[in-house]
Amino acid sequence: MESIVKNREVVLVSYFEGGPVTEHHLTIRETQMDINGCKEGEVAVQNLWIAVDPYIRWLMESPDRSIYFQNYELNQPITSDVVGKVVASAYLGLEVGDMVTGIYQVSEYSIVAGSSLKKLDTRFVKPSYYLGPLGMGGLTAWLGMVLIGNPKPGEEVFVSAAAGAVGLLAAQLAKSKGCRVVGSVGSEEKVKVLREEFGLDDAFNYKSETDWNAALSKYFPRGIDIYFDNVGGGMLEAALNHMKMNARISLCGMISQYNMKDWKESYGVKNLMNLLLKCAKMQGFLVTEYWNYRDEFMEEVRGYMKEGKIKYREDVKQGLDSFCEALNAVYSGGNIGKAIVQVRHP
Amino acid sequence: MESIVKNREVVLVSYFEGGPVTEHHLTIRETQMDINGCKEGEVAVQNLWIAVDPYIRWLMESPDRSIYFQNYELNQPITSDVVGKVVASAYLGLEVGDMVTGIYQVSEYSIVAGSSLKKLDTRFVKPSYYLGPLGMGGLTAWLGMVLIGNPKPGEEVFVSAAAGAVGLLAAQLAKSKGCRVVGSVGSEEKVKVLREEFGLDDAFNYKSETDWNAALSKYFPRGIDIYFDNVGGGMLEAALNHMKMNARISLCGMISQYNMKDWKESYGVKNLMNLLLKCAKMQGFLVTEYWNYRDEFMEEVRGYMKEGKIKYREDVKQGLDSFCEALNAVYSGGNIGKAIVQVRHP
Repeated sequence: MESIVKNREVVLVSYFEGGPVTEHHLTIRETQMDINGCKEGEVAVQNLWIAVDPYIRWLMESPDRSIYFQNYELNQPITSDVVGKVVASAYLGLEVGDMVTGIYQVSEYSIVAGSSLKKLDTRFVKPSYYLGPLGMGGLTAWLGMVLIGNPKPGEEVFVSAAAGAVGLLAAQLAKSKGCRVVGSVGSEEKVKVLREEFGLDDAFNYKSETDWNAALSKYFPRGIDIYFDNVGGGMLEAALNHMKMNARISLCGMISQYNMKDWKESYGVKNLMNLLLKCAKMQGFLVTEYWNYRDEFMEEVRGYMKEGKIKYREDVKQGLDSFCEALNAVYSGGNIGKAIVQVRHP
Repeated sequence: MESIVKNREVVLVSYFEGGPVTEHHLTIRETQMDINGCKEGEVAVQNLWIAVDPYIRWLMESPDRSIYFQNYELNQPITSDVVGKVVASAYLGLEVGDMVTGIYQVSEYSIVAGSSLKKLDTRFVKPSYYLGPLGMGGLTAWLGMVLIGNPKPGEEVFVSAAAGAVGLLAAQLAKSKGCRVVGSVGSEEKVKVLREEFGLDDAFNYKSETDWNAALSKYFPRGIDIYFDNVGGGMLEAALNHMKMNARISLCGMISQYNMKDWKESYGVKNLMNLLLKCAKMQGFLVTEYWNYRDEFMEEVRGYMKEGKIKYREDVKQGLDSFCEALNAVYSGGNIGKAIVQVRHP
């Protein structure tokens, strides 16, 4: 490989203010990179897969609109979860040919501090799975279902938004522990996929079964031991009415209620009394607070994947030019599983 | 002591249907008892103190109005938590002179199955304390504060209804663990007592400080680690806005919302998002589900009392004839600490 390579990177050229993401916001910029130009401690990585997550659009907003994250800078490459292959190394822990993952610039090649990368074990899983079931989303699902939910064989588990990248894994983790698992999703197609491809015991479409209390009575006639909540509001209230003794509720997300300035306009949950009468626990969590569980989680989930107990689905688009399209698709809600961009055509 | 004694017992003669409890509902019936008439396994007990708890009035209602408990029968003695002294025994584990506690008939003397009684260690505490801080209310406070709240030195603890029998103990348990503790109560007198007699760091009157969010900002400028909730509704919502990272909420009671048929009319809590953002836990519990912690709790609380770390206050009325008056006082909310009836004038 020549030392000087042509490099393409995805650059933010104007802040996002609503509507679809277009070339007006993200453009491709061509540069050159000397892959042998690593300084002490750095490695050069040829990037292979990029994660396309909803939070990317938040980081594209003007900094004065954001609360929780450090936004992208204008005229700089954006960052995301990336999986790539080391092509040059001035870092002791990594060699040429190693597969690595980290959060860094979205481009074809990057020069990165070696200490910020994680070397991947790709014997049993696709490298891109380190952006999904073995990445941040996977850790999120594991924390909520395994660490907080603590599922036991025979228990009854409900997962909302069960066809999403996190829900899909949370549901299968509960299946791996011997639970009966039912998910709620937004289309009949997703119901079918969860039942037939991912082995859930059942699933229902919350858009057609609009009386959620009645739906949960039907799908959980014996009640719910664990509710993995991605949605909050009315679905959480309905689930509270079906708790069994010593039930657990993992609060993973309530995205519609993120703006704390307006909390008084949020949905009021009226039946918290159920927590008391059922000696039940409701626990929130943020993946950023639990990085120390990363190795434990990765070993367990990789084991399940090796045994075929956990399947996964990726929605892969080809080439950096498809980044905008992939990001918009995440927000249209049509896809199942993890959205990623493969940097090079195979 | 003669074998045949005159006995007086408190009998339910008509169901309670609202208003104050009177002699129309509870009357004293005089009988005779042969205290040497114990059958195999029974003991005769001279009763000394009777607990006067709110639930007693629920059990006095007609059975068709009750949901959770087995109601009292008409023309039979009512039951309660009792502490007494064994005066005759046909049970291997108890001797004459032993102090015992159990749930049985409210009377001057009772014949009880020995196996249903607990022998008391009265070296360091008043026997009547086994109806309060070392009884069911004490276990309730311990479960919510110690087992579920898990207080650590320096943490910030909020207790609502902090002058009640349970809240008073929960607050002092947190103090014993080295926490800063603030309580909410319903009168200025109670504020004063909590600060001066029970050593709370502060207390406020929720009837005069009606903006509870503002009150909690004032009393907890650094936020709350543990909220021991006896009230639910708007106070719970206010507390949720002040949670620190990894906070815990113990749901001990929400009595105003007991009627589950009407849950849709209950207060809607809008800011559960705080649980997620603060990785916080909210846990309900019922003392009846945790009897197995009784010995552990009793040993710990008795130790604190011996060391003087936990104080208690009883509101004592004299003689079985005062039972109605004591029960009505519990509902008027004026007393501080545990309401009990001393069966004999000292």
